[in-house]
Amino acid sequence: MGRTQPNIAIDQARRPLYVGVDLGGQSVKLGLVDDLGQTLGRSQIPTDVDGGPDDGVRRIALAVTALIEDAGANGTEVAAVGLATPGTMDIPAGMLLEPVNFPSWRQYPIRDSLQRAVQMDVTYTNDATAAAYGEYWVGTGRQYNSLVLLTLGTGIGGGIILGDQPVDGEHSHGGECGHIIIDSHDDARLCGCGQRGHLEAYASATAVTKRLAEELSAHPDSSLHARKAAGDVLTPKVLAEEAERGDAWALQLIQETARYLGVGVVSLMHTLDPAAVVLGGAMTFGGAAHPLGQRFLAWVREEVQRRAFPVLAHSTVVDFASLGSHAGYVGAAGIARVARQRNTQP
Amino acid sequence: MGRTQPNIAIDQARRPLYVGVDLGGQSVKLGLVDDLGQTLGRSQIPTDVDGGPDDGVRRIALAVTALIEDAGANGTEVAAVGLATPGTMDIPAGMLLEPVNFPSWRQYPIRDSLQRAVQMDVTYTNDATAAAYGEYWVGTGRQYNSLVLLTLGTGIGGGIILGDQPVDGEHSHGGECGHIIIDSHDDARLCGCGQRGHLEAYASATAVTKRLAEELSAHPDSSLHARKAAGDVLTPKVLAEEAERGDAWALQLIQETARYLGVGVVSLMHTLDPAAVVLGGAMTFGGAAHPLGQRFLAWVREEVQRRAFPVLAHSTVVDFASLGSHAGYVGAAGIARVARQRNTQP
Repeated sequence: MGRTQPNIAIDQARRPLYVGVDLGGQSVKLGLVDDLGQTLGRSQIPTDVDGGPDDGVRRIALAVTALIEDAGANGTEVAAVGLATPGTMDIPAGMLLEPVNFPSWRQYPIRDSLQRAVQMDVTYTNDATAAAYGEYWVGTGRQYNSLVLLTLGTGIGGGIILGDQPVDGEHSHGGECGHIIIDSHDDARLCGCGQRGHLEAYASATAVTKRLAEELSAHPDSSLHARKAAGDVLTPKVLAEEAERGDAWALQLIQETARYLGVGVVSLMHTLDPAAVVLGGAMTFGGAAHPLGQRFLAWVREEVQRRAFPVLAHSTVVDFASLGSHAGYVGAAGIARVARQRNTQP
Repeated sequence: MGRTQPNIAIDQARRPLYVGVDLGGQSVKLGLVDDLGQTLGRSQIPTDVDGGPDDGVRRIALAVTALIEDAGANGTEVAAVGLATPGTMDIPAGMLLEPVNFPSWRQYPIRDSLQRAVQMDVTYTNDATAAAYGEYWVGTGRQYNSLVLLTLGTGIGGGIILGDQPVDGEHSHGGECGHIIIDSHDDARLCGCGQRGHLEAYASATAVTKRLAEELSAHPDSSLHARKAAGDVLTPKVLAEEAERGDAWALQLIQETARYLGVGVVSLMHTLDPAAVVLGGAMTFGGAAHPLGQRFLAWVREEVQRRAFPVLAHSTVVDFASLGSHAGYVGAAGIARVARQRNTQP
């Protein structure tokens, strides 16, 4: 990127530029992204939730300016900023409402505040939707017209992109795919949100940890007992380690998790019929690069094959996300780009 | 409509016109629809499946011409035709693929065939999606930006409209909301499609009839026994009659059906966050006009209140459809209108 003599013709085709900002509970990830979705530079600052939103926005604006300068770009080449945050939020109003991990940032007009600070148009979006757009634009979904992303972590997030449009929903709750009901019985598992039977209550890291703890005593042969005795907290990471070492029950727990996910994926396929369903987040058991991740994915696909309409089972792509933690800022930049193109259409 | 001296100014604002064609297993419903979604004339012809698709298209084309003439409209005022059929289908290719009730119409290029016959642009769409668009355009959803329609009949159909765009899906399977999984257990009810646990396996007319037959013997006090003894086939209609007469178990079966529907509605709300979820079709227990229909709707809403994110439970409209069997041709005309507007944009 501009190492020696940049090719001016190519550079112009890749203009204008966009800055994507992905606000998380611990850190803010920023990226300077060109018109084709390539990242020209990136940075990261601590969120410092306790410092409050005004200071947070001030520091984000400084980081935006520094990012543009450090990449050697001209500020006038940057057309807009995309800002992604967790919910709850009011996307059209540009408001953070009740974000769980940001107690002092409630009811805060974050979009307009950042807009004033950076003196550029800011497009506001949900972080999971931004990640989905990133995967759709330049990640696993780059060849497809539509995509659903499930992010597997403490909870299960989701983002839906249909024909270049993020599905924000009427009340900024579009893509909350972790809260699809996969079991409607009264004794279904309790979700972190307080309701029963949600996909997240079965297949998130929290749920896997809980299922493991509940069922461990019924599996006295499992090597997980030794890990527990050694003082290890039995997280999905430890589960993965024991599964890799051949513990049959550890593998079975991962397979069951994959099957639950497959159920959710099929409901999404039968509703939205996307070209691709993409799995990302921290709890992918190593993902594409790892044999256990590949087994996990194969089990998800197996459940999808078993349950989906045959035509969809044969043609819908189910795969891992590929941008990792970059998806959010790339996608935020991409959504800013789409919004700008829509606004500047004749 | 044109009864005496038509107001020319208003008429011009309502131009161009569109013809909507809703092809069903028994009959083809046609409507001449103006630019505001008002129906200026309608007609109906038998489908005559056995006559084959070429003859069917020929008769539909004659009916289109007759409809325009009978309404006193000028053929040049009609901008396009919208054609809705059941699936399976390939919407971009304009093909009927394997429509269940149309054995001899398989693999038939119905859009282009009709286009040649009527000498007008034909837009092709799924019948449930068309009905959803009709409700979105001028029915229950007319004030909202997005809508999901569930049609309750022999099966459960679905249509999704987000921001004026029908969700066709990547493989023309968008909106198959009857096949959302509401129970992922291995012993979940078997759906007509051959898979288990789908909403349709619990809350369609077929499912209600089946649940009734299975559970009747456990409810010896039910007045449904007398109906059965009298030789009546115990359909949802008979169930409704006995519920109205105060049979407690009949009411309970209807309530359970509503609760299953509520589960599906919540999964749709948590995924798409539409402004409105609308219930149509034959099995609405009388619908808005009937006290039993109102109780049925109240139970669906109750389950939604119980299970949805509070912000969505408070703000998402759950209501009956209002266009009845007109929704299909109105929506087909509307989708033709949207396609034409998109194509004629600068």
